[in-house]
Amino acid sequence: MMDYNGFFRAELDTLREDGNYRTFAELERHCGNFPNASWHNGAGDVKIWCSNDYLGMGQHPTVLAAMHEALDRCGAGAGGTRNISGNTHDHALLEAEIADLHNKDAALLFTSGYVANWSALGTLAARIPDCVVLSDALNHASMIEGIRHSRAGKVIWKHNDLEDLERKLAELPDGQPKLIAFESVYSMDGDIAPIREICDLADRYGAMTYLDEVHAVGLYGARGAGIAERDGVMDRITVVEGTLGKAFGVVGGYIAASAELCDFVRSFASGFIFTTALPPSVAAGAAASIRHLKCSSEERRRQQENVAAVRRRLDEIGLPHLDNPSHIIPVMVGDPVKCKFISDVLLKDHGIYIQPINYPTVPKGSERLRITPSPVHSQEDIAHLVTALESLWTRCELARRPVAA
Amino acid sequence: MMDYNGFFRAELDTLREDGNYRTFAELERHCGNFPNASWHNGAGDVKIWCSNDYLGMGQHPTVLAAMHEALDRCGAGAGGTRNISGNTHDHALLEAEIADLHNKDAALLFTSGYVANWSALGTLAARIPDCVVLSDALNHASMIEGIRHSRAGKVIWKHNDLEDLERKLAELPDGQPKLIAFESVYSMDGDIAPIREICDLADRYGAMTYLDEVHAVGLYGARGAGIAERDGVMDRITVVEGTLGKAFGVVGGYIAASAELCDFVRSFASGFIFTTALPPSVAAGAAASIRHLKCSSEERRRQQENVAAVRRRLDEIGLPHLDNPSHIIPVMVGDPVKCKFISDVLLKDHGIYIQPINYPTVPKGSERLRITPSPVHSQEDIAHLVTALESLWTRCELARRPVAA
Repeated sequence: MMDYNGFFRAELDTLREDGNYRTFAELERHCGNFPNASWHNGAGDVKIWCSNDYLGMGQHPTVLAAMHEALDRCGAGAGGTRNISGNTHDHALLEAEIADLHNKDAALLFTSGYVANWSALGTLAARIPDCVVLSDALNHASMIEGIRHSRAGKVIWKHNDLEDLERKLAELPDGQPKLIAFESVYSMDGDIAPIREICDLADRYGAMTYLDEVHAVGLYGARGAGIAERDGVMDRITVVEGTLGKAFGVVGGYIAASAELCDFVRSFASGFIFTTALPPSVAAGAAASIRHLKCSSEERRRQQENVAAVRRRLDEIGLPHLDNPSHIIPVMVGDPVKCKFISDVLLKDHGIYIQPINYPTVPKGSERLRITPSPVHSQEDIAHLVTALESLWTRCELARRPVAA
Repeated sequence: MMDYNGFFRAELDTLREDGNYRTFAELERHCGNFPNASWHNGAGDVKIWCSNDYLGMGQHPTVLAAMHEALDRCGAGAGGTRNISGNTHDHALLEAEIADLHNKDAALLFTSGYVANWSALGTLAARIPDCVVLSDALNHASMIEGIRHSRAGKVIWKHNDLEDLERKLAELPDGQPKLIAFESVYSMDGDIAPIREICDLADRYGAMTYLDEVHAVGLYGARGAGIAERDGVMDRITVVEGTLGKAFGVVGGYIAASAELCDFVRSFASGFIFTTALPPSVAAGAAASIRHLKCSSEERRRQQENVAAVRRRLDEIGLPHLDNPSHIIPVMVGDPVKCKFISDVLLKDHGIYIQPINYPTVPKGSERLRITPSPVHSQEDIAHLVTALESLWTRCELARRPVAA
């Protein structure tokens, strides 16, 4: 008979031998003093430089006040699915806030962005007869799993490559339902999709567009609706998918689209129907965060200044980072062992926490430190980071770029 | 070219014609005064009789205090995945609390019970070579989707039928890895699996056992670990899966198992790895709820008294309900139109909210009102409920059981 635990142990040993075993840093964020946190499985305090709480909204007094108020008003959990006693006034208000943010008829909440992608793509692709999904080659795991789950036809097009997308659209029959699935800001490289041109192709070939803006909502556009807002093409997107757990600082995911499409997903998506609704306090906190960032651009402006400052300082000392037009700074190490080593020494000796990003999250040879400056990092924090990185670059004998005289 | 919105509209119209279109009641629970809630898309206050916050822990002062404290200490969201900056001290404490509850080496948190089932079953079944899953015919959608996603072999055995399970186990080769997936308390009928006998079969045929206790954790056993604790067979279960969103009153899901199994799922499950961690305040609230219910049986005792009182009153007037050994009282209507009508009138005229359960959640002809008495329902609430049901039974000319003289 099968030795199950022996099998698990052997698989874990293989991960360890390949350098792919993950150890989690155990943190405790200092609310009101983020990016500072306690490091529980190490010693002392650290500065977090790899958070997706991109604007520090997770500690914003308005967000916290809304959550405290809702906790006292409605209690801890929703107590049921949206259909069976778990649908609250706070969920309705949040969905209205999201629909307004993206200027769509309707929005639909999910327990996470992962579940939003998995459920919405899975339901649309499975239930629209003969639907084929045209999926960008670097789409997130949640989109890939949703498409896989649908068992619909899938065509992968080269990342951000309009010619390849058009070639693949042209090969499909005119009348066949088509769904182009892509992201605006890609998490690991920080590059940005040509949304307008993709929408032009969608129009030409009769395709729906499904745009994942999880790394853009709150951060781009006059009201923080994302890259599609910044580029003036929100009305051309069929489905926008976003998260409440990154720039909005809380947790949860959503889609915004036509009333019919949202109602369709609401009515048929297993991952929406058969799961407990988000706590009302989470919904209230997320709504407060969206409302705040619709009116305030101060957080976005200060974030962009800090992103530019880090890039400038890295350039001054020749540390290689991917040039991209977003807030994500991938500092390229190109070696899994050195990447892990630098991350370990940053944490232990410098009090700087940046999780190493190795294969399989990124291709082998492109191992990196993914740095996300926020408005709550100070100029001293930036100087401290760059000095520590410089010393480690020397110690690990890593290549530098030529520096302008 | 395809008219996508036209397609969605037509599908929704079909749902409406079949009586399967769902309208959500928009509620606002009164914290501290649950089961009372405001009904926002109607008028006035209602009593909730269909919540899965089975013990009212969602309004327990200890749970709320822990959430308020963690909000002020760590902020709103976790800010990242467990691997990238989102792993906090509160998550570690909660996983230790859960492992202790089920007397297992380890536990692993997920954003929901749905994701726990989907990810854990999907990962185990896909990654154990040649694994076959033996799945109870009435397993929850999240288990079905996880098994489907794994693309492993699947054998469905008749609900709670040991003979059928053994027959199907015996047909499989000795050395083939096997996973028996089942629930303890089934949500819609409230019946309970013969866990000990299923474990006997698992031992005999070299199978792992995967037990979903989402409708039992907090409610059964001396410390609220579920039916496996009550029956003294916790140590015989390979994986127990539970929720933090029902009796524990918050949100989230988990598995508890051997250290190797949890580490394996932690290392390979897409739905665990690539998603933002639960907020630290949710983790803190859930841990406080588990800790409380480990020591206090008062809530369980009062719930069971109220369940018995509702059953007794229904029997006195001959209202048919499924006899089962759990806290779930399915009052059988057997007609989808009348079931919806009774629910509507209860809400509008009596201030009683019980969502009707129709096809496809239950088989046609077994439409029902699923009633979940809790320790926070009063004797007056019970009298009010039974009187209202009695008047509607007469009005709808529904059959009654013979009443003992």
